[in-house]
Amino acid sequence: MEILSHISLDSALELPIYKQLAGSIRAAIEVGAIGLGERLPATRELAGQLGLNRTTVSAAYSVLEEAGLLEGQVGRGSFVAYNGASTIARSFDWEKVLPPPESINAASGEAKINFANSRPSEDCFPMEEFRRLSREVIQSREAVDILQLGSPYGYGPLRRYLLNENLAMGLARAEDDLIITNGCQQALDLLARLLVGGSDAEVLLEEPVYHGLLRVFASARARLIPVPVGDSGVNVSALEAIASQQQKTRLLVITPDFQNPTGTSLNLEQRKSIVAIAQRAGWMVIESTIYRDLRYRGQALPTLKQLDESGNVISIGSYSKVAFPGLRVGWVIASRPVVARLAEAKQTSDLHSDQLSQAVLLRFAESGELARHLERTKHMGTERLRAVLESCERFLPAGCRFTRPEGGMNLWVELPPPLLAEELLKAAEEQEVSFLPGGYFSHRRSDPRHLRISFGGLSPETIRLGMGILGTIARDQIAAHQERAPLESFAALV
Amino acid sequence: MEILSHISLDSALELPIYKQLAGSIRAAIEVGAIGLGERLPATRELAGQLGLNRTTVSAAYSVLEEAGLLEGQVGRGSFVAYNGASTIARSFDWEKVLPPPESINAASGEAKINFANSRPSEDCFPMEEFRRLSREVIQSREAVDILQLGSPYGYGPLRRYLLNENLAMGLARAEDDLIITNGCQQALDLLARLLVGGSDAEVLLEEPVYHGLLRVFASARARLIPVPVGDSGVNVSALEAIASQQQKTRLLVITPDFQNPTGTSLNLEQRKSIVAIAQRAGWMVIESTIYRDLRYRGQALPTLKQLDESGNVISIGSYSKVAFPGLRVGWVIASRPVVARLAEAKQTSDLHSDQLSQAVLLRFAESGELARHLERTKHMGTERLRAVLESCERFLPAGCRFTRPEGGMNLWVELPPPLLAEELLKAAEEQEVSFLPGGYFSHRRSDPRHLRISFGGLSPETIRLGMGILGTIARDQIAAHQERAPLESFAALV
Repeated sequence: MEILSHISLDSALELPIYKQLAGSIRAAIEVGAIGLGERLPATRELAGQLGLNRTTVSAAYSVLEEAGLLEGQVGRGSFVAYNGASTIARSFDWEKVLPPPESINAASGEAKINFANSRPSEDCFPMEEFRRLSREVIQSREAVDILQLGSPYGYGPLRRYLLNENLAMGLARAEDDLIITNGCQQALDLLARLLVGGSDAEVLLEEPVYHGLLRVFASARARLIPVPVGDSGVNVSALEAIASQQQKTRLLVITPDFQNPTGTSLNLEQRKSIVAIAQRAGWMVIESTIYRDLRYRGQALPTLKQLDESGNVISIGSYSKVAFPGLRVGWVIASRPVVARLAEAKQTSDLHSDQLSQAVLLRFAESGELARHLERTKHMGTERLRAVLESCERFLPAGCRFTRPEGGMNLWVELPPPLLAEELLKAAEEQEVSFLPGGYFSHRRSDPRHLRISFGGLSPETIRLGMGILGTIARDQIAAHQERAPLESFAALV
Repeated sequence: MEILSHISLDSALELPIYKQLAGSIRAAIEVGAIGLGERLPATRELAGQLGLNRTTVSAAYSVLEEAGLLEGQVGRGSFVAYNGASTIARSFDWEKVLPPPESINAASGEAKINFANSRPSEDCFPMEEFRRLSREVIQSREAVDILQLGSPYGYGPLRRYLLNENLAMGLARAEDDLIITNGCQQALDLLARLLVGGSDAEVLLEEPVYHGLLRVFASARARLIPVPVGDSGVNVSALEAIASQQQKTRLLVITPDFQNPTGTSLNLEQRKSIVAIAQRAGWMVIESTIYRDLRYRGQALPTLKQLDESGNVISIGSYSKVAFPGLRVGWVIASRPVVARLAEAKQTSDLHSDQLSQAVLLRFAESGELARHLERTKHMGTERLRAVLESCERFLPAGCRFTRPEGGMNLWVELPPPLLAEELLKAAEEQEVSFLPGGYFSHRRSDPRHLRISFGGLSPETIRLGMGILGTIARDQIAAHQERAPLESFAALV
């Protein structure tokens, strides 16, 4: 009887032998090794063949009879009554087990004038330098090391370079270490897992805030506390008040320079206050410095890490905004124990970051090409910022308010009632202009009158053209509302 | 008085104005804008300047007096009594908030004969082809797209290529989609987050199993259930038994071909049974196919996904074992809703995978160089496998058992008592030979008599040399135990 080859029993298992036997026979039936209606060996016979007690085999047959797979016929033996075929054909219902989709209403990015993406324009990529330096990396002797399995801390030469640079600039302390991540998004993700994951830690996030930051901490199941950001950055009084009501371990996440989406920066007083509050309250602080080098006006200010003496500030940086977003290289600078734990989390997450891009970006930085590219980017950014501010003044209707960033890629517009960002976007998209409405950046997903204008990737001409279109639409919508208003009042009185 | 410039009040905040005011003053004190011993404005005066009711200012001062920052002197006003300076200097205690370190006892990899790493040898990397094809990618017009922000699903051209290839080979179904990840480690991580994260799902993992797999699901806080793997792969009876005791949603993770660490593969019957059990029990299944193409002997067998008709099987693959581990490119093939949710998780995790490596590997695959390299790798693997099996037979002492893989990079050795893998390792490292002891792959971290021999990255000569050394040490240790035995008995009798 073929059934014997299907039976595997292991006395070392905690599971009773009769259950193991029943499982083996069930499997044999399901794969068709014993057909529907076929007779199984007599219990005495099978027991003999397997060297088991007959009662063990009987017990196994009973289990299968109860499950409806076997049918015992008195005096004749046990027959296969059911092979499970009907259940096998059914399709697995993934929607039942998967979490609901996030349904992110991201702008399609298909519009001709795209104010929706906070990223540099590919027209400005230094392709010639990229090609030359990449060829050097590929031809180098180190290419073999780059292709072999690497370290969770990052490609050694780049890690050393970044740490030395940041120490030299005072952006890392002697007690700090550095780990390389896939852009700053993974830096946030690893930090969220390390500092929040599983605990019920509270996380203080700016409101409005970069949506990727919201998503990371929401998916780490943190309790999120919004900290209002006004025209001049985070409201320190609100932060102070939150500190006075503290219950648990807390993490503050903040972007001191050219915050996404508002474009606002903190002044020196605010920075000092925030560091002092965090130290007093025992908070951990993550500061994002990814836009910091893109300052077009005014004076650079110290980072929170530079003002901090207690070691509770973690800095994250990235090459994405100043070089190539498609090469995913960011980093975390923090006290050594934090970086050591991040390396463990990194290894669990994806072993290590891709080394080819790390090597190319290192060559970019070491050769001075990155600094030269940054100068060009800042020169362009200055023109773009001027264009967007002038266009806001000139084209937006009265009652619109907007921030006045000194750098970065984004600006935050507040529409006067009765205008709504979503309605403006709908009409704008018909004219091939897009942006992200404020709700996208809000903890409560409800911010109907704000919108983000990302100007970093567009030429001054395109910015003027696009803002002109937005201004015209806004005026038209105000006019339409004014025409409709008396009619609506009339209707309400009926 | 300078204090005014430090006060920011916002009636839109939910926080009472007196608390906001107290916060502002506290911040001003902490940053030194008002010095220790200085007098604050009279409540009436400050109320007038701020346009507030005098009682509001008094309430704010009271808060600060209670906190010890101000001291009221009757008839003279309020003075700064404390500026928090002593608390600010203290160093943040990270060890108090961080989770304990994982203390992974990985082998150093410094040994001359390194059986510890399951990875290809860099000596075999096709560097000439890599350099030529990378130059092509870098010079191509697509290079600009590669450097711009990409899609969470992966670099479009590579994603299409992989999906088409897998459809053509029958390894993806028409209902499936594909997403690119940073190697298979991130594939596992994203799947763990999606399918386990936060729920109390039970996850069935092989025992012994790849430690990266254990870590991923442990850090997702899954309840882990070990499924024993014997000389011929997963014990199907045990799986059947687990299915019969099912309580909750369950996920089975399995490597049908050349499992890490045992090197064992499932036969066709086992594969069919596992698919049937999973379908009947309503389990989700993740199968890793990363070693599948490295078959040196015997016939390729269908993947679980190929045998499955219900869509509950998710396949993960990678270029790491067949090309360059340092380029982090893997993928997931699964039903469309699963891939759509994975793309959301990927975006939260790190936006998207690095595109330069994806483009280089695509060129490798499309040009046929990957297939040619795979043939060479398999040819070398055949020799290495033969060398390691012959060496085990020849050098290991009687009583040692070992698996007989038909491919992959790993082999599993069981030492006879009284030998212990950790003791063997200690002596081996003194002679520049390393491997990973079994505990590293065990759910309970206790598997004292097994060890993994990774032979994929070593030449046949090195394998013979290394196994010869291990064999000699093992014999010596057995002999030492036998010599010691009577002495120990004697000592015990004293």
